[in-house]
This record gives sequence, C-alpha cells and structure tokens, in this order.
Amino acid sequence: MTAGFLDRTRAARLMEAAGLDALLLCRPDSLRHATGAFPGVATLFGRAGAAFALVPADLAAPMAAVVGDLEAEGFRTASGLADVRTHPIWVETARAMFDETGRLDARRTSLGDRASGFARPETFDPALALAALRDLLTERGLSGGRLGLELGFVSAADLRRFEAALPGVTFVDATEIAARLRMVKHPTEIAHLREAAELTVAGLARLRSELREGLSAPEIAAIWRGEVVAEARRRDLREPLSSWAYVSVGPDGFAPGGPARLGDIVKIDVGAVVAGYSADMARTAVIGPMSAAQAQVHEALLGAFEAGLAALRPGRPLCEAHHAATKAMQAAGFEGFSRGHFGHGLGAGVFSEEWPFISADCEVEAEPGMMLAFETPYYVRGLGGFIIEDQFLVTPDGLECLSPLPRGLWVIPPG
Amino acid sequence: MTAGFLDRTRAARLMEAAGLDALLLCRPDSLRHATGAFPGVATLFGRAGAAFALVPADLAAPMAAVVGDLEAEGFRTASGLADVRTHPIWVETARAMFDETGRLDARRTSLGDRASGFARPETFDPALALAALRDLLTERGLSGGRLGLELGFVSAADLRRFEAALPGVTFVDATEIAARLRMVKHPTEIAHLREAAELTVAGLARLRSELREGLSAPEIAAIWRGEVVAEARRRDLREPLSSWAYVSVGPDGFAPGGPARLGDIVKIDVGAVVAGYSADMARTAVIGPMSAAQAQVHEALLGAFEAGLAALRPGRPLCEAHHAATKAMQAAGFEGFSRGHFGHGLGAGVFSEEWPFISADCEVEAEPGMMLAFETPYYVRGLGGFIIEDQFLVTPDGLECLSPLPRGLWVIPPG
Repeated sequence: MTAGFLDRTRAARLMEAAGLDALLLCRPDSLRHATGAFPGVATLFGRAGAAFALVPADLAAPMAAVVGDLEAEGFRTASGLADVRTHPIWVETARAMFDETGRLDARRTSLGDRASGFARPETFDPALALAALRDLLTERGLSGGRLGLELGFVSAADLRRFEAALPGVTFVDATEIAARLRMVKHPTEIAHLREAAELTVAGLARLRSELREGLSAPEIAAIWRGEVVAEARRRDLREPLSSWAYVSVGPDGFAPGGPARLGDIVKIDVGAVVAGYSADMARTAVIGPMSAAQAQVHEALLGAFEAGLAALRPGRPLCEAHHAATKAMQAAGFEGFSRGHFGHGLGAGVFSEEWPFISADCEVEAEPGMMLAFETPYYVRGLGGFIIEDQFLVTPDGLECLSPLPRGLWVIPPG
Repeated sequence: MTAGFLDRTRAARLMEAAGLDALLLCRPDSLRHATGAFPGVATLFGRAGAAFALVPADLAAPMAAVVGDLEAEGFRTASGLADVRTHPIWVETARAMFDETGRLDARRTSLGDRASGFARPETFDPALALAALRDLLTERGLSGGRLGLELGFVSAADLRRFEAALPGVTFVDATEIAARLRMVKHPTEIAHLREAAELTVAGLARLRSELREGLSAPEIAAIWRGEVVAEARRRDLREPLSSWAYVSVGPDGFAPGGPARLGDIVKIDVGAVVAGYSADMARTAVIGPMSAAQAQVHEALLGAFEAGLAALRPGRPLCEAHHAATKAMQAAGFEGFSRGHFGHGLGAGVFSEEWPFISADCEVEAEPGMMLAFETPYYVRGLGGFIIEDQFLVTPDGLECLSPLPRGLWVIPPG
C-alpha cells in the first residue's frame, strides 16, 4: 500500500514499533516523499510549520496534508490526496476575469471569491497553519494522540508553538523514522534520480572531451552545465532542472582555483537536480602528465573504491563497504587514512548527502530501492583533491551503476 | 568596532537590551556575518551544532569560534579570529609528505601528526563540537551565563543536547537579534552583493537581446547563466559563483513551461550568488505584441513599484512602502490585491529572501547598509506571471539601485 511515494505498510510497521498513532511530517523532503508533491515555496525558508503531512498508523485512514494556498491545486493533483487543507501565504495570485467587452476586469480579477478583509501574511502564519492542522487532527480523532514529529528538524521555538496550539498531542521524535522512510525510493523518485544521473553523465562525457589547460573552475563547471541543459532540451524534459558543481583546480584540493596549469589536479564533483532530486558523481582529472605521487594516490583510491563496492550488496550492512575501503587504503600504505563515510543516500534534501551514510558504524542494510552515492575522496594538500564517486541503485540482485564512465584519472594533454 | 562582518557595538547594545552575556550564533548565515568566513561544509546539513561563533557582550572580550577541522585554517585566515577551536568532521585530508628519493610517503602523509586511534565521525559529532564549546565558555567565564541562541533555527532535539552538555547556561531566544545583526551589511558583504547584482544585470542584458519565440524555460535560464559565467570570467572573479533562476513561460505564471509562443508571458526571476551572497532581480517579457490585459496588469505593477519605491527611504519603516504599493494597485482597479510583502533583505541565507520583509506591519526602518530586493509581482492565471524586481542598497542619502535596467515589459518580436 502506497500513498504519494510512501510505503504506508512500512510506515505503519515503524510507527507500531515506536508506539505512534500517526506521523506528522514537516521536513520538506519528507513531505515530498510522503505525498509525491512539492510542498510549496513557504517551505524554502527551511523552517517547520508551513506544511504538514499526516500519515496515520491505521492503514484504513487516508493521509492528509496542510499546505500554503499558492500551490494547493497542484499539490492536490500531484499527491492525489483528497484531504488537503490550506493557509494563505505571501504570494498574491488571481484568475483573470474579463468584462462583456473582453477587457480585463481588474476589480473582479483581484477580488476573486475571497472574504472581505482578506490580507496575506508577511511570509506564512504558523498560527493559521496550526489551526488548519488542529481541525484535521480533531476530525481524525488524533487531537490527543502520540504523533511522530521530526524533532531534529523542528526548531525549539516552533516546537513551543506546536505544543501550545495542540495541547493534547504528545510529540515523539520521529527524525530517524522519517529518514528510514525517505531512504527507500518510489519508482517515480528513482526515475527522477535516474534522469538526474543521466544528465550528469552527459555533462561529464562532454567535459571529458573539452577539459583543457587554461580553464578556471567556473568555466569547467559551465561546460558541464551547458551539456546538462542541452541534454535536458534533447529529452524535452518537463521537470524543473537545476544543478550544482564543486570544481577545484590545483594543489589545494578545495579552492575553486584556476586557470588549470600543467600538473594541476582538477576535481569535478557534480550533480544535476531533476524535480528536486539530486544526482551525485565525481571524477578527477590532471593536466598531464600526472606525477608519480598523483598516480599513487589515485590508484589507491581506485583500489579502495573497488574493494568497497564489492562489499556493497543488498542485505549487507553499509559499514562493510566502509571497512573494505578503509582496509584497502591502509593496504596501499595510507595507514592513517580515516574517512567518516564513503557515501550516502540521495534524495530531495537541501544538501546532496542524505542519511544513511556508508560509515564505520552504520548497521543499516542496503535494500532494493535505495539510491546511494559511493565515493572515495582524499584531499591531499600539495597534490590536489582526488575523488571517484558513482551513483548506484540497489536492486534485489545487486547494484545498478547509474554513472557508467571509466573511473581512471582523466589525463588531459597540456596546451 | 567590528569583527568579521559584525558591528560589535550594535551587537552589544542589542545584547544589553535582552540581558545577554553573549551571543552563541550557529545559523550558517549568522556565522558568516559574525566572522566573515565560511563556517564549513558540516553546516550544509542545515542543522545546528557543527559550528559556533561566540560574541561576548563585553567589547573587551574577543570573539571566538568552534568549526569543523576541514576548513579551520581558511576560517582562521578569513575571520582573523585568534581563538578558533575545532572538531573533526567526515572529510579526510592530508598534507603530502615525500621520502628522501622524492617519492610520496603514503604512511607519513596519511598519519600526519594525529593521535593514534583517531577516527573520523560519520558526518560531525555534536558531542565533540559541544565539548570544544564547553571548554571555551569555561575559559571565558561564561559557563553559567545567559547566552542568546537562535531558537528559531536550533532543532528541538539539538537544543536538548546543548542543554545537557552545557548545564549551567541559560539559553535565551536570539533569533531576531541575529537577524537584526545580519540585516546591516559589512562593506565586504556589500561588495559581494554588488558584484552578484552586476553579474545578474549582465545576464539580463544579454537575455534581453537573445530572448525569442521557441525557447523553453531551461534554455532561457541557460542564456542568462551563460552570460553570468562569461562576465565572471571577464572580471577574473576569485569568489565561488553559483546562481538560481525561476523562469516561467505561458499563462500559468508558475510552470517552467515553454517553448515560448506568441502571446506568452515570460517571467524571469534570477540571482547570481557570489561567495554565498545572492542577488535578486526580475523582469517580465511577452512574445509580442502584448494584449491589452497584459499591458493593464504590467502598468499597474509598474505604478505600484514607483509608488512603493518613493516610500522606501532611510529612516522610514518598511511598512510605508508596502502601504504605498498596495494603495497604487487598488487605485489601478485591483481593489482586492493583497500581497504579503513587496520584497525582503538579501544576504547569504539558504533562501534568497531574508528578514526583514517589506510588509504591512514591518516597523523596521530602512537604514544605511541594508540590501533590499523590492518587487511587485502578480501571478494572474490566464495571463501569466508578472514581476518587476530591483535590488537596492540603502545609503545615508537614499537608495542606490543595483539593477539599472528599464522596468517596462520586454516586448519580444515573434518569429
């Protein structure tokens, strides 16, 4: 049973284990996952209270949501939810109304069907959103319930507002439950992440052939971005597209730097973002020839990548890949090498890295539907910033690589 | 007296009024403003606890900070702070070490001078960051103090961690104090916002000449972005550059849409981001000729823009511009027009809109050093999304417009 992008049966199981009557999701990417719809511009402030999704533990009870009025119509369509309540946000909209002569009727256009005295809030009014939520909880018999709330996202000041507006509710931290639900992607989310990966790969393939000495980090990023946009155009992509690129040039490993000169390492860590879902992959180039030291670092990282990847299998805890990659680096002579994680989940968060992490203590098992970035980076001052990073979909049988590009160091002929 | 980008005298005055011994800033843009430095990748998760800036009320006591180890060296240099404490984050770094024969010494490179058993955390470890903070507060005699914390940013779960780690501290909400401090920009921040505006203008000027029928929203954004990157290159820009673009095409007013056809409105709302500081400006185009209804809406918005702008003056509360713009819309026949705000502060936040807002109830006065976006948008289904938005620096004498482009509707010849 699914709703939006959510596996409600899985959600119900997690809620039962935590003794919850419902989840009250409010983190933008949790809302997106649970409803399959964009929760609105008012959530871009990164603050809770502009939108809520209610996921009852009772599978017979339908989900419901509270969102800003601006995108409510699109939200209803995209989510398929029948019960969507709204509160006004700052953006003024209207529907054009014309008089008998065909001229725009400004008065009727601007008034629409709104109540007299209607005035929009500065941004959004948490009291109005919470009032809509209170009505919803009351109608659902949940106004005295145990509700899972993302206390790792809701600010301390907002939690006080929530508690005051919903005095009968017991709020229980559901940050990890929400993350566990987001972790397994819906086919629509996988399609977005796959398309984001394909656009990112197209950009990298173009960059592989156009990267040359003399380019600065922003120019290198622009070549990659140009091809991402061109590929999106060829596909007639209907979804919103954005992108990010961390390109560094030279021995520092972090500074954007450039123009790229003979011997410089170019670190290219990029992602196209389709409908809010971010790809994440990376390659390393050198304005050649590479030095023996650069080759030594990259070879060690490639060995660690292969060792870690072999340990990344459905049903196995993610920590096993961390152990394998770390061991390979140590075997290659980098005894003290200690990286916190070798990758992470992908989704629609504010940062491209989402829980779970491929870390030393992560007992979360790889399971079908997870989208992971696996990476072996090493920033070595004096040599440059090195990274190999691929994007994988976990399937029942293994891993599908969504970044099918050679992993070796790109050697760019100088001049 | 300033430190980083902060006016410490102003900060001390606000702290005195709130009875605070110090501010403990942790929101990424507050950290940036207070210290003048990037607080590190660990802050990109949008969660408190990865970095802190301590701003004592006592002007004789120097500021101090806690940051992740990755960017600590750059942070010390950029902030000029003598007292910067660190905690390890997930990213592994090293300094290349060579043996007598000139070969890379992998062992010494990877070990550096770290203690045996050193292991990096999955992302960052709040307990380690808080331990560093506790030492700092103890040394400064603030471990029993009243500290201003941004409770509108710190999550409820993290506040509990802070309270447990710092049991003697009384935390007081300083969300608005921090926003009031960020509101007045330092000359370096103004320079970033000015450069971001200039790049944005260059892109818009190029787009004005290249916009034509048949282009989709992503292609329109790409033309703008291409010129932003080209202009950055001509200026040999050393700062990190990114950008955002909300382009919509057609009568919906929100959908990215396209390709642009005869009669379509094209809404172009864009910003280049220099060193994290975002510009924000917007223009509206029509694949001409424009209809009478489109002209009527745009003229009303232009009138409202001019009326609001005339009311936006140093020393006057921002609400006056809101009242003037609303009144002008009503006088133009759009009686029911109610927009929550006609603009906002600009800075280095996660969203381009930052407090204060040019809203009906905003008593904050325009004062020199504020950077404002002033806008009159109206999304009219059936006609399109209309907007005029300029970026202004408040000076002692008035407003300096950083988006010197004609404000009229761009009429693009079809074909």
